[in-house]
Amino acid sequence: MSYLKEKILKDGVVINDSVLKVDSFLNHQIDPIVLREISNEFLNYFKEKEITKVMTIEASGIAPAILVASELNVPMLFAKKTEPSTLQNEKQFATDIHSYTKNITSRVIVSEEYLSADDKVLIIDDFLANGEAALGLIDLVRQGGGEVVGVGICVEKSFQPGRQKIIDAGVDVFSICRIASLENNTVHFVEE
Amino acid sequence: MSYLKEKILKDGVVINDSVLKVDSFLNHQIDPIVLREISNEFLNYFKEKEITKVMTIEASGIAPAILVASELNVPMLFAKKTEPSTLQNEKQFATDIHSYTKNITSRVIVSEEYLSADDKVLIIDDFLANGEAALGLIDLVRQGGGEVVGVGICVEKSFQPGRQKIIDAGVDVFSICRIASLENNTVHFVEE
Repeated sequence: MSYLKEKILKDGVVINDSVLKVDSFLNHQIDPIVLREISNEFLNYFKEKEITKVMTIEASGIAPAILVASELNVPMLFAKKTEPSTLQNEKQFATDIHSYTKNITSRVIVSEEYLSADDKVLIIDDFLANGEAALGLIDLVRQGGGEVVGVGICVEKSFQPGRQKIIDAGVDVFSICRIASLENNTVHFVEE
Repeated sequence: MSYLKEKILKDGVVINDSVLKVDSFLNHQIDPIVLREISNEFLNYFKEKEITKVMTIEASGIAPAILVASELNVPMLFAKKTEPSTLQNEKQFATDIHSYTKNITSRVIVSEEYLSADDKVLIIDDFLANGEAALGLIDLVRQGGGEVVGVGICVEKSFQPGRQKIIDAGVDVFSICRIASLENNTVHFVEE
């Protein structure tokens, strides 16, 4: 069993049937051992890909993304959340990402300078639930004409539709932990 | 000359007398070589300190902070920006940080669980200008009863008062690049 799964069983807190709190080791305080293990699993899974850039969205995706990018010695790019605005900036790619947790839609941007048709991009994020963030990042890469070589996720809530939506978009998904259910205050992983 | 200084001279864009754009390599797209050099400089400068935790604020501080924390094998904690709220959560330390750039004051929080009186905390951030973010982080650590062993900054705008405010708070500051002036569209470093 991966160290991340062990940590989830030991220190994760099931808030309700759809929310797992992992902020003691993954997305507020970050355990360096967990994070290096996550990075190594991504590197191992995607090792055949000729990755030119690692991409994520602020803020919780940045830590795993930069470790992977540093090991691959490629740039890491993080999309920024902005207030929705009618101002058009011709130098940005933009997409709208809806958060079901917070029930808000945010405009997310990257500078056009940093995504090109030559890019083979690995997208990394901490959680996958409804897939909105990952689909938004895929959209940004494709606006630049580049290729998404895969999506790497730390914790997937497999009882929500995100994975299928990414597959439907033609992109490979690798999740280190796949959670089948949080019912009865208990974490059940997908059998693999 | 450090690689970060070389990158600033080569790829930094002086927007006006107080704003330097470094988003091609430091705080939007991140150059892995620059970032590892930054991490190594912080590790070298603070190597005598018995650091138990590295702390920063989302989002741009996360990348340098996690590399340093990973090398030290200690947890990294990032403070979260929230909307000002009258809701009191007894389990959070909170402080208000004013951004002169954006002219807004944000409430910034960390969970009380992750800062204690035993902590010796190294604070890392990408920029130091007026010092508001660093002072807010120092305040959070001290609310938990812990000690701030130092503040590590990637790019210091030495013509603004942040460094002096941190020193006045009794905390050591180490900045990899100290910028004396951005006048006439030119980066001048502090002579050292």
